[in-house]
Amino acid sequence: MSTIHKFEHPLNEKTRIYLRVEALLRQINHCSDFADPQHYQVLFRSMFDLLDIFEQIQLKAELAKDLEKQRISYRNWLNVDGVNQQMLQSVLNDLDAVHRGLMSSERFGVSLKEDRFLSVVRQRFSLPGGSCCFDLPSLHYWLHLPIERRQQDAQRWIESVSALNAALNQWLKLTRETGVYHAQIARNGFFQSDAEEANILRLNIPMNYGVLPTISGHKNRFAIKFVNFENGQASSQDVEFDLAVCQ
Amino acid sequence: MSTIHKFEHPLNEKTRIYLRVEALLRQINHCSDFADPQHYQVLFRSMFDLLDIFEQIQLKAELAKDLEKQRISYRNWLNVDGVNQQMLQSVLNDLDAVHRGLMSSERFGVSLKEDRFLSVVRQRFSLPGGSCCFDLPSLHYWLHLPIERRQQDAQRWIESVSALNAALNQWLKLTRETGVYHAQIARNGFFQSDAEEANILRLNIPMNYGVLPTISGHKNRFAIKFVNFENGQASSQDVEFDLAVCQ
Repeated sequence: MSTIHKFEHPLNEKTRIYLRVEALLRQINHCSDFADPQHYQVLFRSMFDLLDIFEQIQLKAELAKDLEKQRISYRNWLNVDGVNQQMLQSVLNDLDAVHRGLMSSERFGVSLKEDRFLSVVRQRFSLPGGSCCFDLPSLHYWLHLPIERRQQDAQRWIESVSALNAALNQWLKLTRETGVYHAQIARNGFFQSDAEEANILRLNIPMNYGVLPTISGHKNRFAIKFVNFENGQASSQDVEFDLAVCQ
Repeated sequence: MSTIHKFEHPLNEKTRIYLRVEALLRQINHCSDFADPQHYQVLFRSMFDLLDIFEQIQLKAELAKDLEKQRISYRNWLNVDGVNQQMLQSVLNDLDAVHRGLMSSERFGVSLKEDRFLSVVRQRFSLPGGSCCFDLPSLHYWLHLPIERRQQDAQRWIESVSALNAALNQWLKLTRETGVYHAQIARNGFFQSDAEEANILRLNIPMNYGVLPTISGHKNRFAIKFVNFENGQASSQDVEFDLAVCQ
């Protein structure tokens, strides 16, 4: 069996940001143990990318609105015959908890921005090659501190965005669960379909086709064009893949 | 014994770039085995930082000139009594070899820039959170390729800057060797001194002072002010440290 290339595509700008934030939070988490000497590079870069995003959009308000929408749509299933009420109640409880956590959390990134050390590092970190000791002496001092201290600092930074993390994970989990994978064929490397108010497309593509998807569209209609990885040209193969459309 | 904070400071803009490039090449090398799932982040970022630097300055010409200067100064010791001629000849041979390698190499970064895959990745890699699959489908396809293939690609990219790597290492090695560490005291956290055409200051600072150096100056004179890491204030302690001034 061929390796599967798992792929996700957001169908609107907001979901695009959510998926980017999810990826950044995962990177931060992965690198917060400093098991590899280069982990600090990814950790700081990802934190500063997060701060850039927080400065650009009102993530907290958007996410609260979306969680509320999910809450309303799940509440419609209360006392409906054939619906597992215990599971439903558990989902509603989870939604309430993350929504409450979100509303009582600080404005995203405030404590990261107020952290003197992080502010100093952020100023020069994006210079090409700018994480040298002479560009960032305080970063290099910090890198010489015991690993336990650095891990504690990372945990504190992660803690400051934990409400975001929980809320985003919950929203994305429920959104992904709305989609069911179906086998599809892209004839001559092309596939298009309608979608109803969809947020995310999920694709499983066997690697042996040597193709990657380029996707265009919006919440109600989308098109997938497969392109050869090696030469960048549109593929003319019939590509069999699995597709889940998530509302 | 307290941990030592090793610190280097370039005294001119050119050496500043050399040290940044050295750090980037080390990062690229370290991450080229993809032993950690986040290594690709550091590898690509560092390669694109290198390309940014190549676009800003004529690194090859600068480095060739500096190697030539080193060659001339070492040649002055030929046939001088008391100088180990065998060692000297070995240094001169090394200098000749890296200089020849440098002159016969391509313009730095040409093949990296012509690499279709790298160009595609470079376009979006610096977006905040922009290495998601939907922002960079070809990067994510590549990440699903067998590790051996990815390591081969990385080796090819590294190979394309091997002449730079060898020349820079040689110049920095000889430059660092000109400096001998001497014990110094920064009274009330302050130290200044003359230097003669120096390129790099090297400091070993015991971590137990809790201080980091901020250094100003140029090739003939410099000042070191120690600052407390925790509060960012100038230190008023007497700080004992080791200093090597490298020409």
